Amino acid sequence: MNVQIGKQSLRFAEAPYIISSASIVGKKEGEGPLGSCFDVVGEDDKFGQNTWEEAESTLQKEAFLMAVGKAGLKTEDIRYLFSGDLLGQNIATSFGLMDYQVPLFGLYGACSTCGEALSLGAMCVAAGYADYVVSMTSSHFASAEKQFRFPLEYANQRPASATWTVTGSGAYVLGKARSKARITGITTGKIVDYGIKDSMNMGAAMAPAAADVICRHLSDFGTSPKEYDQIITGDLGTVGQEILWDLARQGGYDISGVHADCGIEIYDAKKQNTGAGGSGCGCSAVTLSAHFLKKVESGRWKKILFVPTGALLSTVSFNEGMTVPGIAHAVVIEHAA
Amino acid sequence: MNVQIGKQSLRFAEAPYIISSASIVGKKEGEGPLGSCFDVVGEDDKFGQNTWEEAESTLQKEAFLMAVGKAGLKTEDIRYLFSGDLLGQNIATSFGLMDYQVPLFGLYGACSTCGEALSLGAMCVAAGYADYVVSMTSSHFASAEKQFRFPLEYANQRPASATWTVTGSGAYVLGKARSKARITGITTGKIVDYGIKDSMNMGAAMAPAAADVICRHLSDFGTSPKEYDQIITGDLGTVGQEILWDLARQGGYDISGVHADCGIEIYDAKKQNTGAGGSGCGCSAVTLSAHFLKKVESGRWKKILFVPTGALLSTVSFNEGMTVPGIAHAVVIEHAA
Repeated sequence: MNVQIGKQSLRFAEAPYIISSASIVGKKEGEGPLGSCFDVVGEDDKFGQNTWEEAESTLQKEAFLMAVGKAGLKTEDIRYLFSGDLLGQNIATSFGLMDYQVPLFGLYGACSTCGEALSLGAMCVAAGYADYVVSMTSSHFASAEKQFRFPLEYANQRPASATWTVTGSGAYVLGKARSKARITGITTGKIVDYGIKDSMNMGAAMAPAAADVICRHLSDFGTSPKEYDQIITGDLGTVGQEILWDLARQGGYDISGVHADCGIEIYDAKKQNTGAGGSGCGCSAVTLSAHFLKKVESGRWKKILFVPTGALLSTVSFNEGMTVPGIAHAVVIEHAA
Repeated sequence: MNVQIGKQSLRFAEAPYIISSASIVGKKEGEGPLGSCFDVVGEDDKFGQNTWEEAESTLQKEAFLMAVGKAGLKTEDIRYLFSGDLLGQNIATSFGLMDYQVPLFGLYGACSTCGEALSLGAMCVAAGYADYVVSMTSSHFASAEKQFRFPLEYANQRPASATWTVTGSGAYVLGKARSKARITGITTGKIVDYGIKDSMNMGAAMAPAAADVICRHLSDFGTSPKEYDQIITGDLGTVGQEILWDLARQGGYDISGVHADCGIEIYDAKKQNTGAGGSGCGCSAVTLSAHFLKKVESGRWKKILFVPTGALLSTVSFNEGMTVPGIAHAVVIEHAA
């Protein structure tokens, strides 16, 4: 029997397995510290397409195929797709995945989407609604700059707190077939708004939501940070990380010893000039697949908490003077013997 | 035991109940044929706010409160929110619902979002993941025109095939507590692309997706149109309706005798100058709550198929010459004695 735990969490009786995963990234990500870990590194960030949006769609198309292939499955074995992206009206997802003819639940959780997709995918499999689903997401530096900031040709300056949107897509096949890692529980986030209005400091905007869902998770499950080999946020970057540690401490938990952030891991910020770190839906999606998940699968780590973080803004809300609220969704991933 | 049916459908063993629902609309919708059926009709489409986007957020805020209140529940009784809207990065949802502090799954299915939200909400309750969830969505004429077309001040002309975005929000409380209507099954849609490129003829763009999911539903459940008191699409309008009937006939089903479309019902198109009919996420959400669901609850109808329809475009995809693919999600709603 699947169980509701506390206010916001679920524990799965028959925890779904992460049967396979795949990552595809752009040139800059390939030149970063994790470069050799990704399945595919593009030579040209247009990935053979005419527009940045089509390039991002291609990332999703490729990541899906690789993940399904690695699982030894065919497209038609996948019963549901859970996916979303950062572009208005989710166009990277729609145009990337439509050829596969798999029933689609389109999601929007900003850069928390990988957590949302894994949560809903795991809920779906654990309930017996599907034998196999794919949970995935993407982002692209150039399509995101165009969507949220300035034309690349304008060559605007960026403050040190700004993050660099990851070009990449990560896809996960979840199902009942045994593998080396499984999703044993989830804690679903609420929107948290600390009144931040600086869209060039999204780490600060998202950190309160990350702290909220992590503290809630530990409280719901009656556990402590030291029971996790790592608590991994999505894209807080260096500025957001410090705020997260402070807020978690105020919430009664010291996570500084076990915390990592995908946005910090994916680039060498100084050498690559990426400001506070990587960001975007794709950031956590590719870093989990290429790096952290492998440690769980190998058994080197027993249990991690994966917490993608999202900043809920649009250019319209920003230009109208609204705040940048955050949201984060936590997923427990454990080694399976 | 919940059961996977055929390729794309689920039948719920313990079908979740629609415990309550609420609708709030703008002035024009209040002047239409269903005007007296909505819970709240606004006098001013700004709903006391400074911007159209804040006005749309207010619609979600009010619809949520009304639905929860009608169910005799408090905000904190709701375990999950499933919601989305048409604006880039779902800002109507984020800013409308953040005060309630309910864990949120943000969705994007264009105007099919009400079907997606009801599907995921029902899956969640049927699996025992929540006692109560709220599934909802919204749209606003002015925020949608600004997002997708032209500034209102520009006063552009519209072809007869164009639809009129409904200002409104509909919210549904789903749960295990008994009521007069329940969601007994769902059929989840795939993206269907017939190559339509005219964003002023979205009925034609969405009709193939509606036909696909309706035919798939009837085939998966081994049933026929005459077993439904009504098959109700979201916002195909008069142009899309004819195409749907033709395509369904080609698929082996004559649905013309039992088909209705929320977009056709909500306005008096000739008197109100609304072109082919109403559209937008809010269109099907408020029309189901105010009109069709009441017939099921009263027992006058035993079983309906509710099929919100979405057009997957953005201004970026449109301007880049991409097609307008469609998606639709079907929800079976039955009278409960």
